Amino acid sequence: MKSKATFYHAGCPVCIDAEKNLAFALDPQRFDLEVVHLGEHKGRLPEAKNAGVKSVPALRIGDDIYHINFGADLSALQ
Amino acid sequence: MKSKATFYHAGCPVCIDAEKNLAFALDPQRFDLEVVHLGEHKGRLPEAKNAGVKSVPALRIGDDIYHINFGADLSALQ
Repeated sequence: MKSKATFYHAGCPVCIDAEKNLAFALDPQRFDLEVVHLGEHKGRLPEAKNAGVKSVPALRIGDDIYHINFGADLSALQ
Repeated sequence: MKSKATFYHAGCPVCIDAEKNLAFALDPQRFDLEVVHLGEHKGRLPEAKNAGVKSVPALRIGDDIYHINFGADLSALQ
């Protein structure tokens, strides 16, 4: 069974770059990747916040959050 | 031909976690992953610094550097 991976971003240049080069670099045999644009889907903000996302871009793998470089603080998207 | 990916770390808990869950999550069909412990291989510090690594853990994919969470500043390893 594949693990779920969620890439949270906000469309910023840092986000787009990390999506293209890192999120899409995950092994598709092992991960189901969902890409969530928090600027366009603000309803997902509480979920991201509760999971521990503090800034975007961030990649959630299982229960772990990996903040990748820094594009924007989550509070700027609310 | 596979792309080269280099994971720079220093053995810290944040590093080990990112190595296990993120670096090893890359698609092995597309990436040749090298793991470099900068604390044990200080001779690789200039290479990492020149590539743009500012803190560990960091993942280099091609010419791009992705700082993942924050374990230690590179200057602390010199």
